[in-house]
Amino acid sequence: MTHAKEFIKASIKGIKEYVPGKSTEEIAVGYGIESGNIIKLGSNENPLGPSPMAVEAVHNMAGTISVYPSVDAAELKRALADYVGYPEDNVVLGAGMDGVVDTLMRLFVQPGTDVIIPTPTFSYFGIAVGSAGGVPVYVKRQPDYSVDTDSVISALSDSTRFIYLVSPNNPSGNTVPEADVRKIVESTRALVFLDEAYVEFANRSLTGLVTEYDNLIVGRTMSKAMGLAGLRVGYAVVPQWIIGQYMKVTTPFAISRISVAAGLAALQDTDYRKRTIENVLTGRQFLSDGLSGHCRVFPSEANFIMIDVSPKKSKDVTEALLELGIIVRDCTSFRDAGESLIRITVGTPTQNTRLVDAITRILQL
Amino acid sequence: MTHAKEFIKASIKGIKEYVPGKSTEEIAVGYGIESGNIIKLGSNENPLGPSPMAVEAVHNMAGTISVYPSVDAAELKRALADYVGYPEDNVVLGAGMDGVVDTLMRLFVQPGTDVIIPTPTFSYFGIAVGSAGGVPVYVKRQPDYSVDTDSVISALSDSTRFIYLVSPNNPSGNTVPEADVRKIVESTRALVFLDEAYVEFANRSLTGLVTEYDNLIVGRTMSKAMGLAGLRVGYAVVPQWIIGQYMKVTTPFAISRISVAAGLAALQDTDYRKRTIENVLTGRQFLSDGLSGHCRVFPSEANFIMIDVSPKKSKDVTEALLELGIIVRDCTSFRDAGESLIRITVGTPTQNTRLVDAITRILQL
Repeated sequence: MTHAKEFIKASIKGIKEYVPGKSTEEIAVGYGIESGNIIKLGSNENPLGPSPMAVEAVHNMAGTISVYPSVDAAELKRALADYVGYPEDNVVLGAGMDGVVDTLMRLFVQPGTDVIIPTPTFSYFGIAVGSAGGVPVYVKRQPDYSVDTDSVISALSDSTRFIYLVSPNNPSGNTVPEADVRKIVESTRALVFLDEAYVEFANRSLTGLVTEYDNLIVGRTMSKAMGLAGLRVGYAVVPQWIIGQYMKVTTPFAISRISVAAGLAALQDTDYRKRTIENVLTGRQFLSDGLSGHCRVFPSEANFIMIDVSPKKSKDVTEALLELGIIVRDCTSFRDAGESLIRITVGTPTQNTRLVDAITRILQL
Repeated sequence: MTHAKEFIKASIKGIKEYVPGKSTEEIAVGYGIESGNIIKLGSNENPLGPSPMAVEAVHNMAGTISVYPSVDAAELKRALADYVGYPEDNVVLGAGMDGVVDTLMRLFVQPGTDVIIPTPTFSYFGIAVGSAGGVPVYVKRQPDYSVDTDSVISALSDSTRFIYLVSPNNPSGNTVPEADVRKIVESTRALVFLDEAYVEFANRSLTGLVTEYDNLIVGRTMSKAMGLAGLRVGYAVVPQWIIGQYMKVTTPFAISRISVAAGLAALQDTDYRKRTIENVLTGRQFLSDGLSGHCRVFPSEANFIMIDVSPKKSKDVTEALLELGIIVRDCTSFRDAGESLIRITVGTPTQNTRLVDAITRILQL
């Protein structure tokens, strides 16, 4: 008799488990450093903490956690639609942008279909494709980490269901120019999923393009500029024909009551958002100026910067930083990122100064 | 050129959208009744509200919502493993039990596989199967809503990947006897998913059987006896060989920081759990005694009871109750439940009295 183990889908074999940034607790225990002395610049969180209005909303909802959330978080969907300037019929929600991606996979990806992913980039999309039974087709970005549109278009086949573009890209920080997005979208009927998780820190968003195409989806999140990473609220702007299908396969009650309330409050807190973005723009420039004499710094439109520490290895440099209580992201777990890239979240001015001092010293060793 | 719409998987067509219980807000607006006068006995929530310790945990965590949760909520997993008396390697988590089900679908279900579901029962499992590309094979329960083990076993094929048993069953309230579970598990190498969402209100749990079989999974939740429906915490006890595979395909950070903290606190609040269970046992008996002269009442081991209001229609009776500000669950949206079944959550003593009075009057009309 077959063991149930043999029933695991073939596509699962190729999946590499998601590697998260290291947590403060982990480093405190592993390196014997007091939590208060650790600075976490490894997960692209907001160093200013959450919006005070969102925190207040959490307190106000605490007494109602025994009640189910609304099945579709309609109120939050309306507010997010307003925020991006679209009607509600163009917006879908999920538990983080990952949750939106999971739901889209259910609609379109199965054994025999493939998805084009320019690398290095955020790894979860590829995991989601494999989990749905599909095949991620990886296409390397160019040496400056821009998307090679010709390679992407050459990789298209009748089986392609998605092309995954991240802009600003994680971990490289650069955006995909509008002309490149249009060229790719117009070259196929497969869906282009443009991941704009970090777009509030960029010069401009391409979310507006969704009105022009039937096959463009723009993913967004409340984890970054809205400061709600801990609460899992993602959304996407989609062509209206997708909405009915999405609602059929989405997990009911995906967004918790607390997340809905905090999300609504964070959207209203324009002052917090302004401070957040100012902190990133100033700090990004500071990091770039402080580090560029010592290593290659890539231009970034995100709340992080990527550096190349070659001939040193990113593994050794991040390890040396951890010993000083500074968490950054070694990019070796990103496919095709090589062994010398490090991603650094923009912190508070004090944190940024400490980071530049530490890394400068380490690179001079 | 093909429109992207044609890329939607064939299995999606057959899916019927999930129908949730009605919310207090919906009825307040729709029927012009003040929220405070509405009683919600339609979604099997805890009428005592949440655990005070869980509420306190939410307040304590509010300031940290900008930080990502731990990728696998390891602390909560350890605590839940203790609670069910298993090692950690037998426990997986998800955003609600629905989240656990979604993840299991990724591992095992695809086009060409099927899943056996005795009906009427909780509808999300079937939706998840279709979303993963599989085919739900529905087998009717017997007239008393017990599982017909022979029909289930006859429905098995080489393509079967899961058999879905809910015990106590939603909406009927009855459990699956241990002998029947064993008979089904032993008849196949397909996985049996035993959904024990309501088991804290039953005479006994079969979670202990997982040690004996390589193909039995028991789903559990913090939404019911733990009072955390609003925070989406589900888990399952699984054979150890599944853990590594599950971790590969689970969505990272699936459980929010707030949910992890509240879950840990609720697990420690044994006093709350005791009060919750006592309220259900007493109230269930009260509802059963009060209604059984007026309609058929099915024996229940859950925090709800099911009644048959024939020759009246459940639609008309639930509508009449809504006009009185009482929300119960019309079961017509459950496949194979017919048109005269209603599911009623056990409320507080005051709520139960109001329900019995109202329904008695309506049934006498």
